[in-house]
Amino acid sequence: MSKGVLTVVSGFSGAGKGTVMKRLLEKYDDCALSISVTTRKPREGEVDGRDYFFRTKEEVEAMIEADELLEYAQYVENYYGTPRSYVEEMLSKGKNVILEIEIQGAMKIKEKIPDTVLIFVTPPTIQELKDRLVGRGTETQEVIESRLKRASEEAEGIESYDYLLVNDVVEDCVDELHEIILSERRRASRNEEFIRTIQKESREFFN
Amino acid sequence: MSKGVLTVVSGFSGAGKGTVMKRLLEKYDDCALSISVTTRKPREGEVDGRDYFFRTKEEVEAMIEADELLEYAQYVENYYGTPRSYVEEMLSKGKNVILEIEIQGAMKIKEKIPDTVLIFVTPPTIQELKDRLVGRGTETQEVIESRLKRASEEAEGIESYDYLLVNDVVEDCVDELHEIILSERRRASRNEEFIRTIQKESREFFN
Repeated sequence: MSKGVLTVVSGFSGAGKGTVMKRLLEKYDDCALSISVTTRKPREGEVDGRDYFFRTKEEVEAMIEADELLEYAQYVENYYGTPRSYVEEMLSKGKNVILEIEIQGAMKIKEKIPDTVLIFVTPPTIQELKDRLVGRGTETQEVIESRLKRASEEAEGIESYDYLLVNDVVEDCVDELHEIILSERRRASRNEEFIRTIQKESREFFN
Repeated sequence: MSKGVLTVVSGFSGAGKGTVMKRLLEKYDDCALSISVTTRKPREGEVDGRDYFFRTKEEVEAMIEADELLEYAQYVENYYGTPRSYVEEMLSKGKNVILEIEIQGAMKIKEKIPDTVLIFVTPPTIQELKDRLVGRGTETQEVIESRLKRASEEAEGIESYDYLLVNDVVEDCVDELHEIILSERRRASRNEEFIRTIQKESREFFN
């Protein structure tokens, strides 16, 4: 059994990443979501080790110190991070681990695990993105403008990604995401053990 | 319309490459075979520009001189080569161009067109390869041994390929090959124009 592929999905807010991820996990059981560690308190119904790993501030800071997080960030005084041990355990079991984070986190993970696959999700056109961002109709002008500004910053980072995934029809996008993950798994560089076995056997058999 | 992907398929003789290529072309019309130039005489039913580009020795040598072939080889006094102009024309029309050649030719093409995708096709195990090579039952011992020797040499080159494709069930292998081609087409590096458009539009819209 070859190791799973670690995939990071980023992209414009409003590109429908959340829906795509949810459908991917429902549809393909070779894929699993990474579970984040957080210092925020569990909400009703949230289970430790399923929704998050709930830890104290001291515990998370100790993990940061010991380089046990692939990336982390702070929002509203709480830490959120990706535990390296959990990700690596899932990968070694052959699961394709997937996580959704922003570009800064994506770059940090790629630095620590260089064969991470970075995928940027975009709507077919910027006009469509703008319609999606503005068109929910429920947000204040201020919220919309902050979203648009963020989208503009996000656009500048696209070149750092490995793949560009256009989310036009959700189900197609989900299947395409899955195809990329499966194709990456067939990379020669991810199958060195199989290649060495083939080479060793072929030397023994044929010479 | 983005450019097509150039894919080179190599692999053990006896791995079933021929069948996989034939089915790929029947099944997926976004893929087209590269057409080789050759100095050998047309056989009955063969059409110039469909089966081969039939050219004189002088013409092919002039093409070699002018660097108009992505790779070429000589068998039994005849030249066989891959015309760069035909391949590039098909790619720019958006076709995914595929060709089946040996490792030396594959490496030459990758050198001239660095984003060529190299795929190595192998049976699930070397034992199975041996069974396939030997088991046709119609060959002399000498032919079999020469095949086995060649397979052993081919095995040493696998690491130079981008992807490893295991041909267990032909139809699955065909679909997987097609998935790799489509996924490669979604690489950020192959969609620079789309990315630049997105970035330009997002600057105009959002700032």
